[in-house]
Order: sequence, then structure tokens, then C-alpha cells
Amino acid sequence: MNPSFNVAVVGATGSVGETLVQILEELAFPVATLHLLASMESAGSSVMFAGRKVRVREVDSFDFGQVRLAFFAAGAAVSRSFADKARQAGCAVIDLSGALPDALALVPEANAQALHGLAQPAWVCSPSAAAVALAVTLAPLRQHLEIERIHVTACLAVSAQGREAVNELARQTAELLNARPLEPRFFDRQMAFNLLARVGEEDAQGHSVLERRLVSELRVLLGLPDVKIAVTCIQVPVFFGDSYSVSVQTRRPVDLAVVQGALDSAPSIERVEADDYPTPVGDAVGQDVVYVGRVRLGIDEPEQLNLWMTTDNVRKGAALNAVQVAQLLIKDMV
Amino acid sequence: MNPSFNVAVVGATGSVGETLVQILEELAFPVATLHLLASMESAGSSVMFAGRKVRVREVDSFDFGQVRLAFFAAGAAVSRSFADKARQAGCAVIDLSGALPDALALVPEANAQALHGLAQPAWVCSPSAAAVALAVTLAPLRQHLEIERIHVTACLAVSAQGREAVNELARQTAELLNARPLEPRFFDRQMAFNLLARVGEEDAQGHSVLERRLVSELRVLLGLPDVKIAVTCIQVPVFFGDSYSVSVQTRRPVDLAVVQGALDSAPSIERVEADDYPTPVGDAVGQDVVYVGRVRLGIDEPEQLNLWMTTDNVRKGAALNAVQVAQLLIKDMV
Ligand SMILES: NC(=O)c1ccc[n+]([C@@H]2O[C@H](COP(=O)([O-])OP(=O)(O)OC[C@H]3O[C@@H](n4cnc5c(N)ncnc54)[C@H](OP(=O)(O)O)[C@@H]3O)[C@@H](O)[C@H]2O)c1
Ligand SMILES: NC(=O)c1ccc[n+]([C@@H]2O[C@H](COP(=O)([O-])OP(=O)(O)OC[C@H]3O[C@@H](n4cnc5c(N)ncnc54)[C@H](OP(=O)(O)O)[C@@H]3O)[C@@H](O)[C@H]2O)c1
Repeated sequence: MNPSFNVAVVGATGSVGETLVQILEELAFPVATLHLLASMESAGSSVMFAGRKVRVREVDSFDFGQVRLAFFAAGAAVSRSFADKARQAGCAVIDLSGALPDALALVPEANAQALHGLAQPAWVCSPSAAAVALAVTLAPLRQHLEIERIHVTACLAVSAQGREAVNELARQTAELLNARPLEPRFFDRQMAFNLLARVGEEDAQGHSVLERRLVSELRVLLGLPDVKIAVTCIQVPVFFGDSYSVSVQTRRPVDLAVVQGALDSAPSIERVEADDYPTPVGDAVGQDVVYVGRVRLGIDEPEQLNLWMTTDNVRKGAALNAVQVAQLLIKDMV
Repeated sequence: MNPSFNVAVVGATGSVGETLVQILEELAFPVATLHLLASMESAGSSVMFAGRKVRVREVDSFDFGQVRLAFFAAGAAVSRSFADKARQAGCAVIDLSGALPDALALVPEANAQALHGLAQPAWVCSPSAAAVALAVTLAPLRQHLEIERIHVTACLAVSAQGREAVNELARQTAELLNARPLEPRFFDRQMAFNLLARVGEEDAQGHSVLERRLVSELRVLLGLPDVKIAVTCIQVPVFFGDSYSVSVQTRRPVDLAVVQGALDSAPSIERVEADDYPTPVGDAVGQDVVYVGRVRLGIDEPEQLNLWMTTDNVRKGAALNAVQVAQLLIKDMV
């Protein structure tokens, strides 16, 4: 019999956590006992897993010595407070918050090899959804393109900010359609029928934390520590599914047929032909792949590859990638 | 007394046409008689101008010999059918459809000098809203930056496609909020809470007509015939106000203080400071300027300038620019 593992999901009642629990079941991850953790607010509620109800408990009083593997999907503060405690207790940590800067960023399709010789218990992170999507798409192209610079405009769904943001977009939209005055709550201004040019705070140089994080994670994931990356992350009035407008400068002319072939052979990519294009609502939501469309050279510039990507931020961008990372980790954990 | 002119507005009942008539009044454009033209459908209705009702008539039976200046804001087919007739009758033509490839693209803030020695009657066009916004913003920076390449992701409001598109976004949103099945009409798929990766048809190389048009217009407007421009035009669920994520590669390091100073001195630009950013709904709509925010260098790349722009596509992007062009034209038409 194959070994199975005690697993904890911190933030099990959130968008990512709920999906993570579903995916553990769908992929028949070898779970012995599943521990679901959240804040005091949800403690006592329960979540279905493998046909039975699992009670949600408070993370504060949890003994991580009981589990071999813990997913942290409850925000930066919770990862900062409890991830190290878990490691001390001998538990492998997969963080989804980005709050552990020394955790190794992993996307199996891009840098699985980085796991070789990793210190135990593992201390890794599932990168930002944008880094996952870009790494999945660009990794199979790396060997065919000499990438000089990547330009990305990331159009993030409100679910990238959790359940509350989803509710707020719905509430704002209803208020506006009913011609009632808008009082923004979760966002600091109107999000419905609007675009916000920045997600989160910005630093003295004008870059948001998320933009900085994307650049450093993508360099690691692609194994291109010096690649130049220009990124703008905006918030769009879409519930689920991030989209990306991407332009890659290369040192040599791009062979479009080779690029299309590489995308078509990649198992986690679905390429959409030129007469159509993928959308977050029509394609990405609920799916396990990154949809890629509008694949084209630059205008008067054969050293440029342009494309459009869309993917389920909660699923492929977070929960599924984290479980795929876990599948690799347990190979060394027998 | 200053001379005044007989003027025709073709498409006077549309989003752009209505705004154009308003702006002629607001700017006290020297109109002698105003002729409002549209299709059979609206003929007979009337529009207010300078305190009195002006009857809308059918363009088909109009004698352009009666006017010195005609704005064409009724789509490509109408410009193709009637603009040349107007020119033959000695009337200056300002096209807003982009259907007259030999018409000179004009944005007064960028290339007013191109009017010198123009053949009469003038045959000019107010370029796409994206080209207007980019030209207004980049023209004052031209002398300070050696621009090598421009990357743009243009996030277009549905009003860029006229009144019907606006109604359709409202209708789709209401259907979805009421959990009724969605049957897309104007757009070929769900537009509410979604992003469409392309606006209009694409050519064999994968570029849309609008993207090609933006590249050729912007090169003319900036007087940079060889500048490389990478552009992706997407459709976003916003009613009014286009937004642009822009990244400019330069041949020398960018001096951010100089850039900010040049933007601040430009009369048609409102720069938003680093602690905030402009949005289409909160800033652009109904305004005469281009809002510019998130002005920053590249990450590890001082030869890169990044910024975010938003502007009223119907007003600054189309109607106002067309009237500003007309103000220049009539100087030579006494
Ligand atoms: N959403 C995405 O697309 C996405 C993508 C990549 C990474 N991530 C990351 O994944 C994490 C979760 O995001 P989400 O979208 O799932 O957020 P969410 O829907 O708001 O859920 C937050 C979860 O964290 C729990 N939590 C909050 N404060 C807690 C505390 N003090 N102690 C214990 N549990 C606490 C909540 O439990 P209660 O029910 O008790 O409040 C809930 O289970 C975040 O770090 C986020 O950055 C999200
Ligand atoms: N909207 C923008 O942001 C924007 C920006 C730049 C340029 N433009 C260009 O401006 C033009 C108008 O756009 P819009 O947004 O105002 O469109 P719109 O709201 O749909 O209005 C279309 C106008 O054209 C008239 N029209 C349509 N078919 C006609 C025909 N066969 N004969 C005579 N008149 C006809 C309509 O008159 P009826 O009332 O009789 O139907 C209406 O006045 C288009 O060429 C567009 O590409 C628009």
C-alpha cells in the first residue's frame, strides 16, 4: 500500500482553501487525516471531504506535530504567525500568501527540478497566480526563444482578493443597476464597471508589492535571474479568472510555428486558434489549464511574441498548483 | 465680426455625434447654421443646440454644398458613401470612423503643424480614441525621451462601440444579477463580468484592424514613422472611459522628474500623484483631459517609463478632438 499523510489546510473556509480541499479529493491525494483550520469565526462549521463532514478548528490551538504537510491559505499574517511553528514541529509548509520570502517558489511545470536536495521539512510557496500562469505558459517556450524582456498587464479578477471582494463587486453592481447611491466598502472606490490601476499598496518607486513579487517569482520559476520584466497589475470587474496581456521581446526572430507546437504539446496549456480567443468567464473558470490565445508576432517586429492568457486564479493559479507541489513533495517524504 | 460657418454633423444622434454638438456649443464654435444628419431611423427627431431645437435629417438627401465643414461620426460605411461627395462639394471633411485611409490624422496637441500647406478643402481625420490619448500623453515627452518602442494594452469601454453596446452591457449585467439565462446580442459572448481579448476582426497576422490603425496613426501623430509599437486592444465591462497600460522603452535612462514636469505643464494632461491613481469612472468620464498616473521607471530598468492613462473615449477621444481640429481648420478658411 502507498503511504498516506496527515494534512492540514489553514484557511479551509476561504476561496482558495475550499478549492484546495476539493482538489485533494479530486486528485485522490493520499490523505490519512485531514485537519481544516481557520479563525475563531468559522471554527465549529464543517466542510465535506471524501464523503464525510470534517469539522473546522481554530488554527491558534492546533498542534502541527500531528501533520506531515500544511497548506497556508489564510493570508500573510497567518503565515507569518504559524508557518514557522509548523516547520519547527517537523511539518512541510506550502505557503500561498507570499509572506515567507525565503520559501522556494514552485510551479511543477516550470521548475520541478528545484526540489532536488531541498532541506526537510520542505519550506516552499505556491507563487502568485500571475507567476503561476506566466511560468506555465513561458516554461515550454524558454528553449525556443531567447527571452530578453517580458511585458505583462495582469487583469486580476476580484476573487484574487478573497470572498469579501467577490461579494462587494456583486453588491456594488446591484446598487448601481438600481440607481442607488454607491458606498464602497471592501474597495476604496467604485469597482463595478470600473478599472483600478493598482492592487494593494505601492513602494517609493511606484511598484506594488504584487508587481515586485511577480518579477522575483517569475525569474526564479523560469531560471532566468536577469530577465527584464515590466508588469502592471490592475483590478477588473470580473468575479473569477485572471487575464494577461503579454509581450515577449526576444533576441532572435520568433518562429511562430515552433511556438504554437510547443504550446500545443504542453499538458497544462490549451491554445485557442486565431479565429477565436479565450475569456475568463467562457474558458478559464473551473478549469485546470492556462488558456492561451491571440498568439502573434509584433507589428514590423519578428523579435516579439504577443499573446493573451486567461486562467482560473483560485484553481490553477493557487489551489491546484499548491496540490501539484504537494504531490512532488511527498515523493521524498516516505 | 469673426466669420461663422455652416456645419454638418453626420451621425448626430449617436454617442459621439451628440457629444460633438454639445461641444460645438460649449466652445462657442462659430456656427452659422448647423445641419444634423443621421439615418432614416432618426430623421425627424430633434436635438438641442444653442437653446433651440434642430431637426435631424437623412444624410442620403443632404446637399453638402450648403456647408463648409462636415463631421462624419456615423461609422465607416457612411464615411465611405458620403465623405467624398462632401469634398466634391467643396466642404472640409473631419472623419471619425477611420474609413478614409488617405485622410490626415490630427491631434492638435501632437501634430498641429501638419496642417501647414494642407490641400483645401481639408480631408482629415480624428484618429482612434487610443491614438488620441497616447498622442496627447506622449507628445510632450517626445523631446525628453528617445523612444525606441511603445507597449500598450488598451482597455476599451463598451461605448467605444456605440449606443447599442452600452445598452447591451447593462442588459447582460441585469440578466446575470437576476440569475436569468444570458443570450448575448450585440457582442458574440458574455461581456458582463468578462474581458474580450479582441475588438473586431483580426487579419492573417493576428492583429485587429483597430490595433493596426493605432500603430499607423500614432506614428504619424508623434512624427516617429519607425517607432515600434506593440498593442493589444481588449474590451472591458466599463461603460465609459478607456484605460491604457503603457510601457515605453527608451534609448537612454529616463529622468522621472523631467517627465513629471513635462506632464504637469501639458494643458490636456492631469497627472495623478503616486499615492493615488485615476480611474475611468472616477476621473475620466465627462472630462476634457487625459488622466495619467502610476508614472514609474521599470524594475531594474531605468530605460523604461511605465504609466497608466484614462480618458473619456467619446469626449476627449473623439468629439472634443474633432472640434479642436475644426478650430484649427477654420483659421485657414476665412
Ligand atoms: N484568491 C486567489 O486568487 C489567490 C491566489 C493566490 C494566492 N492567494 C492567497 O491565498 C490566501 C487565501 O486567499 P483567499 O482568496 O482564499 O481568501 P479568503 O476567501 O478571504 O479566505 C481567507 C481564509 O483565511 C482564513 N483566515 C483569515 N484570517 C484568519 C486568522 N486570523 N486565523 C485563521 N484563519 C484566518 C479565513 O477563515 P475564516 O472563515 O475563519 O474567516 C478563510 O478561511 C491568501 O494568502 C491569498 O493571498 C489567493
Ligand atoms: N464611441 C467612441 O468612443 C468613438 C471614438 C472614436 C471614434 N468613434 C467613431 O465615431 C463614429 C460614431 O460612433 P458612435 O459611438 O457615436 O456610434 P453610435 O452611438 O452607434 O451612433 C451611430 C450614429 O451613426 C448614425 N448612422 C448609423 N448608420 C447610418 C446610416 N446608414 N446613415 C446615416 N447615419 C447613420 C446613427 O444614426 P441613427 O440614430 O439614425 O441610427 C447615429 O447617429 C464611428 O465611426 C466610430 O468608429 C467612436
